[in-house]
Amino acid sequence: MRKKVIGRICSTVMVCSLLAAGNGTTYASGANNSDAPTNKSVKNVILFITDGMSLSDVNLARWYQGGQALAMDKYFSGLVRTYSTDSLTTDSAAGATAYATGHKVKSETVSILPDRITMPFVGAVKPEDVNKPLPTIMDAARMAGKSTGTVFTCELTDATPATFLSHAYTRDNAQSIAEQMVYSGVDVLLGGGSGYLVPGKEDINRKDGEDLTKILKSNGYEYVTDKAGLMNSKTNKIWGLFNPEALDADFDLNPQKQPSLAEMTKVAIEKLSQNENGFILMVEASQIDWYGHDNDPVGIMSETLAFDKAFKAAVDFAEKDGNTAVLSVSDHATGGLNMTNYDSTKDLVSVMKKAKHTSYYIEGSINENNFKKVLADNYGLSDLTKEEADQVRLGMKDNLSPVIGKILGDKIGVTFSTDDHTSEEVGLFAYHPANFKPTDFVNSGVIQNTDVNKYIQEVTGLNLAQLQDTLYVSSDKFKAKGATITLDKTDKSNPVVVVKKADQVLKLPIDKNIAIQDGKTTKLNGLTVMIKDKVWISQDALDLIL
Amino acid sequence: MRKKVIGRICSTVMVCSLLAAGNGTTYASGANNSDAPTNKSVKNVILFITDGMSLSDVNLARWYQGGQALAMDKYFSGLVRTYSTDSLTTDSAAGATAYATGHKVKSETVSILPDRITMPFVGAVKPEDVNKPLPTIMDAARMAGKSTGTVFTCELTDATPATFLSHAYTRDNAQSIAEQMVYSGVDVLLGGGSGYLVPGKEDINRKDGEDLTKILKSNGYEYVTDKAGLMNSKTNKIWGLFNPEALDADFDLNPQKQPSLAEMTKVAIEKLSQNENGFILMVEASQIDWYGHDNDPVGIMSETLAFDKAFKAAVDFAEKDGNTAVLSVSDHATGGLNMTNYDSTKDLVSVMKKAKHTSYYIEGSINENNFKKVLADNYGLSDLTKEEADQVRLGMKDNLSPVIGKILGDKIGVTFSTDDHTSEEVGLFAYHPANFKPTDFVNSGVIQNTDVNKYIQEVTGLNLAQLQDTLYVSSDKFKAKGATITLDKTDKSNPVVVVKKADQVLKLPIDKNIAIQDGKTTKLNGLTVMIKDKVWISQDALDLIL
Repeated sequence: MRKKVIGRICSTVMVCSLLAAGNGTTYASGANNSDAPTNKSVKNVILFITDGMSLSDVNLARWYQGGQALAMDKYFSGLVRTYSTDSLTTDSAAGATAYATGHKVKSETVSILPDRITMPFVGAVKPEDVNKPLPTIMDAARMAGKSTGTVFTCELTDATPATFLSHAYTRDNAQSIAEQMVYSGVDVLLGGGSGYLVPGKEDINRKDGEDLTKILKSNGYEYVTDKAGLMNSKTNKIWGLFNPEALDADFDLNPQKQPSLAEMTKVAIEKLSQNENGFILMVEASQIDWYGHDNDPVGIMSETLAFDKAFKAAVDFAEKDGNTAVLSVSDHATGGLNMTNYDSTKDLVSVMKKAKHTSYYIEGSINENNFKKVLADNYGLSDLTKEEADQVRLGMKDNLSPVIGKILGDKIGVTFSTDDHTSEEVGLFAYHPANFKPTDFVNSGVIQNTDVNKYIQEVTGLNLAQLQDTLYVSSDKFKAKGATITLDKTDKSNPVVVVKKADQVLKLPIDKNIAIQDGKTTKLNGLTVMIKDKVWISQDALDLIL
Repeated sequence: MRKKVIGRICSTVMVCSLLAAGNGTTYASGANNSDAPTNKSVKNVILFITDGMSLSDVNLARWYQGGQALAMDKYFSGLVRTYSTDSLTTDSAAGATAYATGHKVKSETVSILPDRITMPFVGAVKPEDVNKPLPTIMDAARMAGKSTGTVFTCELTDATPATFLSHAYTRDNAQSIAEQMVYSGVDVLLGGGSGYLVPGKEDINRKDGEDLTKILKSNGYEYVTDKAGLMNSKTNKIWGLFNPEALDADFDLNPQKQPSLAEMTKVAIEKLSQNENGFILMVEASQIDWYGHDNDPVGIMSETLAFDKAFKAAVDFAEKDGNTAVLSVSDHATGGLNMTNYDSTKDLVSVMKKAKHTSYYIEGSINENNFKKVLADNYGLSDLTKEEADQVRLGMKDNLSPVIGKILGDKIGVTFSTDDHTSEEVGLFAYHPANFKPTDFVNSGVIQNTDVNKYIQEVTGLNLAQLQDTLYVSSDKFKAKGATITLDKTDKSNPVVVVKKADQVLKLPIDKNIAIQDGKTTKLNGLTVMIKDKVWISQDALDLIL
């Protein structure tokens, strides 16, 4: 089980009484930008999120390939401010929610309005809207007849994919998040985390006894679990989860079994682009963050270069297609990597090149008897000092990643300042067929993370503000109709909202997008979601009670 | 005497046999960029160099003012790669030389072609051109009839101003650099370092006994040493040096005595813009680097915000003028500052705001008896632990800056990873009246430092390649004319090149732009420069021997 950011529970709550209009948009002035190309509309958007990637990480990856320009370099166009509503340094949940919904939210929460606002330039939230689920760009796309997809290398329930397809008060609520994602209506979902869909004894397995892969199949999805299955797929509605937990790092993966990020991206684009109404695809390079936490420069290089290949595949498609914008942003940076080195790069690069695998790759097999050979073979570290060897011995008992990272880092001039997130601005990389970029939309080279979502709305014509008042409403609205609401917890892990009015009975299972009435199951526009004991329902569920 | 980067002497020399064409231009493709506005020409360029400023430094400064956008934010447009010909992490001399001349050079050298190339994408140097002085953008501007200016807050001899107006094998050669600058023909020069111009007993004073302020006056310059003198000046040819060494930090300076960077910038623009042929102005925010070396977050905030005000003044002028481009870049980043903080920013900002002075400000007056009050008054550090107090006591004996930086940094979530330079890309901020930016010129969001100089040439029509073969030539060329050359060291610290042919005698004092013949003094286009015992002369000096 890989490292996650430890949740930070907030001690005070500050909720204001005004509408959350203009949430987080210090810079936004886009609509009036007279320099904007007139032809800014596109049908498709591919949004990359490089979790935890700092611009110094990109620098390191560039030198790993001898200083050659990366594919992303050409498209660099600005900086993105990432702070959440309650923290200068955000986490992936709040960071990605800003991209998914256009709202800054509280750290650790997944696409719901905040119950704590201490940071500047964040619109207030009406008391009745606190913790209300926010429609995502995927909701808007789906309801507009576009196809939607998410690609990632972590478990599907990890914060970034979660924010696009689910809602939760805490990102750790994987059981609920996985179920919501299955019922989210996303067309293509590729990554890791198959263990989260099936019952079993592992922590990650479903505790409600449901086999969600059956639900997927009954809803018309193809479900594949290996690379061959993905490559041979002929359908356009597909889930592919290629490992019970996260996928392996790009430097480590078995290309016969697991697809690379670029391969998954290409397949997703191929399938989604069959829809003549267009598509929205989110691709996350998930693990740059993890290797930042672990202070493992090899993992950072592995995943940054894997992202670069996937980004190139997307831009190659977009340039041919002529109707697609490609964006890449990070949710935040992680690790505080710095490069300080006055040596000849010729040597530096050759030292770097000897590092061929992440620290995870060797974790299972390294031991007292073989560690010198393992480190020599995998990192070129063939000349360990006695002190370094002792550090490795200690690391093998605890956490080896930062130990190898330190020994290798000393040779290539790489240091880390933290094992946690940092708050510097992250890079914006953008392609648009008429060269209308988020920085043009906002008329500033430094933008807010929320502006990226607003830009996607602007270029696609999707409208989240409209949905915000209609897609999710409080279940209290049933009461206004004279109905009663109870929560049926007969099946503890699958609670159902039961709405009764005279002879009408409506059942709304939590975390699903279905309504059951008179034995008939109806598909809803949105999910039924419970946030801290309060139930939020899709507006169209309300209309089912007369 | 403030901290400087320790020189790194290179042990091997690698010089190749091809011309240094395209030196450092991995990305350059500008001339063919079909998206470029047709109206890209400007008359004036104002180039800011923020010495040592990382993008994380900008983030910190932004939060010091509560998270409000900085003036520079709107103009952020790309990243700049800064490596030198022999090091992944560069120094200010090689870093600024790239901007001054369009060439990557060896670390620690000042505007001369490199004798060591180990880094990729750097053109080779012809053996006969090794260590040859490079014409700077100031030379080209001056020879094209434009006015030129440099503004800075360090001593005039420090690496960045030096690279625009002098040439040296090592940046530490302050005696030579100061003299070259006096004879450089620059129209406006404002900053610190008056001690470098006059004889005296201090290390910084002139060892050749010359009073260079007299030379300035005899060459028609007004010479001022206080703010009133600057503000009352009515001339357009002026040197103003407002302290014997560097100026005080913006947070610390006495506004009655020393002008701020913004004030000097405004005055320089006002004077230079009187020339209808246009001007080139280089403004250095010199000290961000120093506070990075000292791990002093307050100094970084002070100097970054001072730069921001100066940048705003320049853009305000440019927007009105309509014929001026404004650029800002860093030579490299320093200190590896990171912000990691999950606390409420409200508190963070108020904690930051209590820090009102740099560590230099208190250095002279803090002592065992008053340190608690001094730290409380100047940094809001009123609750020192016993351990912190002990650290301060140690710091007072050695180097107090990083001690205060650490105690304050812990409170505001700021860490430093090094007391030296880092190699990440630095920010490019750019304004152009027709929105033609360096990134458009190169057609990439990540550019080389050398591209910035090439862009200035492109938009102004100045041509450094042409000058490179004509402005500086080897003094050996006199021999080809049948002349003999000797070096007259009668005045050890003022050597003079003596060229004789039949009854012709030509004297060329080193570090000056004058030729003496038959008792007559002629002004030359370039300086007579000695680099490692080899003398380089202005082409027009050669023509004085028939």
